[in-house]
Amino acid sequence: MDTREIATEFTRLCKAGQFDEAGHRFWSDKVVSTEAMDGPMSRCEGLKEVQAKGQWWNDNHEVHSFKTEGPFVNGDQFALRFEIDVTPKVGERAGQRTQMAEVGVYTVRDGKIVEERFFY
Amino acid sequence: MDTREIATEFTRLCKAGQFDEAGHRFWSDKVVSTEAMDGPMSRCEGLKEVQAKGQWWNDNHEVHSFKTEGPFVNGDQFALRFEIDVTPKVGERAGQRTQMAEVGVYTVRDGKIVEERFFY
Repeated sequence: MDTREIATEFTRLCKAGQFDEAGHRFWSDKVVSTEAMDGPMSRCEGLKEVQAKGQWWNDNHEVHSFKTEGPFVNGDQFALRFEIDVTPKVGERAGQRTQMAEVGVYTVRDGKIVEERFFY
Repeated sequence: MDTREIATEFTRLCKAGQFDEAGHRFWSDKVVSTEAMDGPMSRCEGLKEVQAKGQWWNDNHEVHSFKTEGPFVNGDQFALRFEIDVTPKVGERAGQRTQMAEVGVYTVRDGKIVEERFFY
């Protein structure tokens, strides 16, 4: 599969809400995931850490809706835009329902996602 | 100015339709601009080539509307999402009014944009 094919299938799974399956199929064992914030999860390295971040996020947010737009492709990278309506269960913003948009940029190598960066 | 400040000002100019001014202020002399297509403009290197690409695009498209969303920031990069309603004047799609969305990812170094990549 080339980058556009991977992007299309990854996006299809995200649009269906199957984020775990998308990661399971396409994350490299050595995937690096970066968030645009400070803290322990600003950079996660390796499949276990990245999966743990996803699990933490799922456990600590009530998701009212999650829309995925894309994919947008360039070379070995693709971008997705997310529209998220969510209430955090913990932290400073606990209980505050928030609507936000963000962009994820994914880098593909040898058929797997080796890096994802989230922009907001 | 840090990356978020540059991104905010660059985006403000794009939202006002001042793309030339945005580039004039923030492109590095060595900026590299890549498009997600084959052809002579798939990769432009240096301010003159990138400005020439912009001029070519302006000369060869009738723009009905151009909306900019963002900025979305992560580290030394930021992303913008564009919604474009345009009719090309030349090429295979000449005369065909088209609506499309795309994402631009910009990399900042020493206060200037050193790379921009367009995803679609």
